[in-house]
Amino acid sequence: MTDERIPVSDAKTAPHKVTSKQMADAIRVLAMDGVEKANSGHPGMPMGMADVATVLFSKYLKFDASRPDWADRDRFILSAGHGSMLIYALLHLTGYKAATREELSNFRQWGSKTAGHPEYGHMPGVETTTGPLGQGLSNAVGFAMAERHLASRFGDDLVDHRTWVIAGDGCLMEGISQEAIALAGRYQLNKLTVLWDDNAITIDGAVSLSDATDQLARFKAAGWAVKAVDGHDTSAIKKALAWATKQSKPSLVACKTKIGKGAATLEGSHKTHGAALGAAEIAASRLGMGWEHEPFDLPEAIEKAWKKVGKQGAKARKAWEARLADSAHADEFTRAMAGDLPAAAFEPLKAAIAQLVETKPAQATRQASGAALDQLFGAIPEMIGGSADLTGSNNTLVKGTRTYDAPDYEGRYVNWGIREHGMAAAMNGMALHGGVIPYGGTFMVFSDYSRPSIRLAALMGIRVVHVLTHDSIGLGEDGPTHQPVEHLAALRAIPNLLVFRPADTIEAMECWQAALQNRTGPSALALSRQKTAAVRLSASDTNLSAKGAYELKAASGEAKVTLFATGTEVPLALKAAETLEAEGTPTRVVSVPCFELFEQQDAAYQASIIGRGTVRVAVEAAVKQGWERFIGEDGAFVGMSSFGASAPAEVLYREFGITADAVVAAAKARL
Amino acid sequence: MTDERIPVSDAKTAPHKVTSKQMADAIRVLAMDGVEKANSGHPGMPMGMADVATVLFSKYLKFDASRPDWADRDRFILSAGHGSMLIYALLHLTGYKAATREELSNFRQWGSKTAGHPEYGHMPGVETTTGPLGQGLSNAVGFAMAERHLASRFGDDLVDHRTWVIAGDGCLMEGISQEAIALAGRYQLNKLTVLWDDNAITIDGAVSLSDATDQLARFKAAGWAVKAVDGHDTSAIKKALAWATKQSKPSLVACKTKIGKGAATLEGSHKTHGAALGAAEIAASRLGMGWEHEPFDLPEAIEKAWKKVGKQGAKARKAWEARLADSAHADEFTRAMAGDLPAAAFEPLKAAIAQLVETKPAQATRQASGAALDQLFGAIPEMIGGSADLTGSNNTLVKGTRTYDAPDYEGRYVNWGIREHGMAAAMNGMALHGGVIPYGGTFMVFSDYSRPSIRLAALMGIRVVHVLTHDSIGLGEDGPTHQPVEHLAALRAIPNLLVFRPADTIEAMECWQAALQNRTGPSALALSRQKTAAVRLSASDTNLSAKGAYELKAASGEAKVTLFATGTEVPLALKAAETLEAEGTPTRVVSVPCFELFEQQDAAYQASIIGRGTVRVAVEAAVKQGWERFIGEDGAFVGMSSFGASAPAEVLYREFGITADAVVAAAKARL
Repeated sequence: MTDERIPVSDAKTAPHKVTSKQMADAIRVLAMDGVEKANSGHPGMPMGMADVATVLFSKYLKFDASRPDWADRDRFILSAGHGSMLIYALLHLTGYKAATREELSNFRQWGSKTAGHPEYGHMPGVETTTGPLGQGLSNAVGFAMAERHLASRFGDDLVDHRTWVIAGDGCLMEGISQEAIALAGRYQLNKLTVLWDDNAITIDGAVSLSDATDQLARFKAAGWAVKAVDGHDTSAIKKALAWATKQSKPSLVACKTKIGKGAATLEGSHKTHGAALGAAEIAASRLGMGWEHEPFDLPEAIEKAWKKVGKQGAKARKAWEARLADSAHADEFTRAMAGDLPAAAFEPLKAAIAQLVETKPAQATRQASGAALDQLFGAIPEMIGGSADLTGSNNTLVKGTRTYDAPDYEGRYVNWGIREHGMAAAMNGMALHGGVIPYGGTFMVFSDYSRPSIRLAALMGIRVVHVLTHDSIGLGEDGPTHQPVEHLAALRAIPNLLVFRPADTIEAMECWQAALQNRTGPSALALSRQKTAAVRLSASDTNLSAKGAYELKAASGEAKVTLFATGTEVPLALKAAETLEAEGTPTRVVSVPCFELFEQQDAAYQASIIGRGTVRVAVEAAVKQGWERFIGEDGAFVGMSSFGASAPAEVLYREFGITADAVVAAAKARL
Repeated sequence: MTDERIPVSDAKTAPHKVTSKQMADAIRVLAMDGVEKANSGHPGMPMGMADVATVLFSKYLKFDASRPDWADRDRFILSAGHGSMLIYALLHLTGYKAATREELSNFRQWGSKTAGHPEYGHMPGVETTTGPLGQGLSNAVGFAMAERHLASRFGDDLVDHRTWVIAGDGCLMEGISQEAIALAGRYQLNKLTVLWDDNAITIDGAVSLSDATDQLARFKAAGWAVKAVDGHDTSAIKKALAWATKQSKPSLVACKTKIGKGAATLEGSHKTHGAALGAAEIAASRLGMGWEHEPFDLPEAIEKAWKKVGKQGAKARKAWEARLADSAHADEFTRAMAGDLPAAAFEPLKAAIAQLVETKPAQATRQASGAALDQLFGAIPEMIGGSADLTGSNNTLVKGTRTYDAPDYEGRYVNWGIREHGMAAAMNGMALHGGVIPYGGTFMVFSDYSRPSIRLAALMGIRVVHVLTHDSIGLGEDGPTHQPVEHLAALRAIPNLLVFRPADTIEAMECWQAALQNRTGPSALALSRQKTAAVRLSASDTNLSAKGAYELKAASGEAKVTLFATGTEVPLALKAAETLEAEGTPTRVVSVPCFELFEQQDAAYQASIIGRGTVRVAVEAAVKQGWERFIGEDGAFVGMSSFGASAPAEVLYREFGITADAVVAAAKARL
């Protein structure tokens, strides 16, 4: 669809003879002024990359500033998020409605859309939240993966756009970048281009202080097309971007730039990186640029030239809208991009649950999760996912699913490779792109590897599902390096992340449903390696797991004891309750598949579950932290207080004292 | 010191004409048998790399099996830790005392030293805990860095050894490996050699399913010398290892191998990766190798040949001991390697604290940490550290410190680069090597990036110090991507990690002291970006912070209210107490610099601090999780329940309601 690439006039024919340099200077001045007003921020990168960004936006980026949500727009990702004034300036200059002069002058202030680092959901045109280095670049791989998949599903008359990334040295030094570029290289994502701000400067000084990597050779080794260019030579940049669009691989353009380009005395210095330049330096820089306007004021000609750029894509956008209107895929495409689930998304799942009440299978909850996927995958065609090389262990593959691969990207099973962090970041990019619902599997202990990206999903409020199997010492012989003990607590600590730990197949299915219905945040499913008994023995019309905690077994009389448990420890609680009941102590059992959803219930429901006044004991094969919410200061906790060990699972449960007998003893000690 | 390289006989002259192949087969059989007996484990890698390991141990590795703690031994690191039977077999065969036949046959059982993955501190000869992929390789960079530094400090007659790593495809796909190899390349660590088990197989099948990286080109781009070799050709392996020892850069030897080499029908299959081969396959494999012995039995000739290998290094070791005895550095070297601090390690710090009681400086606790370093760095010459490119922000540089760099590695300030994960893993390697006490700085939010290595430090029980600045919304304008809210809870959840959050300069110094005195685990210091008042106004003979929590201000009468706080929120608690006292409510304030050390105090002390029966309020600019330990079920918590925002710090504290007024109101609501 290269004929759709937006035709734009050369600088020489632009109105009032505005040059690329002048357009770039507008970015530079706005960046200086925004940071100066806030007395906080990073002017160096926007100034250094202003020329490249000007060429990209005015000649190559397919967008229409009046429609930031146009589904077939090119995605622009500022991976070097500290240079946020670059994107705010660009959105302002090209006429994004929300990017007002007022917003620019409120940079980094309470309530503004111009947060210190670009935040998804604040300012239209910001495609992803960046700042933690390497994340944007890795999100971009997910964007590009989603684009190729949707193009295969819906055709390239509806889906045919590029993903452009500006990344800095920091992005390239972070390990996640290796996972990302290896993924992109493997999948030949030729519509992905990274513009590397090769300014040879980091916060502490020269890049050479800490790095001697030949980045071009490194990207080439990962299967990328690579090229270096003078990042202040407009015509060379143009040629390089044209070259990038013609590659059969992902492309890296190393843009040799000077950080703080245009600063009167500090150009090229790491001092421009992370602080306001100061009034004197700014005045001198304005003088050097011949810029006579007040802060946030723009010369009319330059303003017009930029606004024209913002409108260039309107024609292509309208043509696309016409194609969509005519397409047989219109409804399905629109639904998928909106993130709405199919009307019958959960019908097969509900039917399966109805059967499970009868069959009561004893199986590992990772198998239960696989059974849930079996029901969901066919009913929700936008589900796409895989495993970080643990397919058989994570039970993430629905039989018969085609593998995602080049050149036909229609497959929905992704071999993520041994790259938990890159997987999680790419999942974020896929979810942000829209039209797909990504999931990824690994061992729960390795959620530590992907944690920065899980956090960002929670911060952005996007729907991704992490399938985390082998969720306790119950994995056995692999030992403490592989046994999560603190991970449930650590994940529960992240705001806006739903952490599920289902106890059996029905709960696993309910949790999957709740995760997919949670449109405003990510979910993590903690799943057992080891087999566990069915605990839900009767039918329910409602999704009990979605309440977060619920009474699984009532006491025989007025309850004297409440036992709380999750996952594979629920059967222990049930067994302990049986013993206590047999001894004449009315005991209830509460299953707690999701702390966070429980907190969303009303106070009366919460109180009814918590059971104050009863002796309270919680059992979970993990650290106690967070359980005080349920058991109070005087309740007992049966769980872990150290790392695990290498031995068969049943030995470990016994040796670490996580048994029904221990639960009974803890309750009795308090009766 | 190449003349110290152990001279060993060629296979043809070995006793009873034992061949390399036969010696390698001994590893293969032990690996098959150990995994079979446990019915759990990974035979494929040990079998595939048996030939390489045999050449390494018999011809190149400098070691003496009778002295696993010989300080100048070569370090052997099995980064692909799932292949643990490889190292257990090697230690057994070469005669390490602890690696008994019984241990081998108790592989992966409760109480054995032969854990599922190699664990530091269990079996002598295991230099680091591996299993989480990429960690061993990255530890190795720290080992090699420490070796070069100590060689510069003590001379190469005392320190001159190599670090050898066996790494798999998984290690190389993990992003941390990029950080590690870039560090090694930058610092020209020529005594580091990675033997890559290039078997083209991962758990899910062929490497090509998920990766197409040209690893040799990638390592070359990072500044490594690279070579490929047939991993089953003994003579080619010998040449390659000889080549590696002659490089002026770190070296990668790609060993092309067949996974499960020697397995009768499964050789080359991913089915040998992670499960017992089964009796029939093992019997057939034995037949193929001409191996007629029972499980764990060894043919005498092969046993003797291997035992001889284990003794080869004795001569070099004795010569080294003689040199040490004659060395002027003997005491200092021995002390440093033992991990003992100098007798006067804390004298300057104590003198500084005595002054601080007078001067009461108001400064950010990151500056306080810098002030502590100023006092410690001269007194403890084995301290070596730096920052992940945030030197000025982390206050990790003591003025006048030389930079760690090639070719003279005596400098003690490390430019870690933008590589939090690689930094943390290399710190672990340095601590494991011994002779140095490593520290590293970054923003606290990026502890998520380094978390897997922090966890391993805690699991191994090694002394590393993480300097985590910008510890709350108090960092202000950089916004929620950079503001930790869940990180205190998430770090506190890790067993055996001390998490400190000092309130002022005296507490910061006390916390640093406690961290350095904590020889059995890592520490993390949470430090503020923003200025904060001095709270410790009187002198104390004891390190109050080392108690974890202590009464900073007593109530004027019988206490009605107890306020708990950490770090920059302690002044808020003090102000709130002042208000409450003025209103006639006796109020005490407890500072809680370290949850974990508080848990180590006796019950009476804990009870005296907790103040049950008083109204309890905690204030910390972070999530509540974990604070119930102090405030019970009915206490109040003033803190965060969501992510932060981008705005000046004082605005954020006000908008998120973390104020002295809020603390007062919370207390009053409960009085």
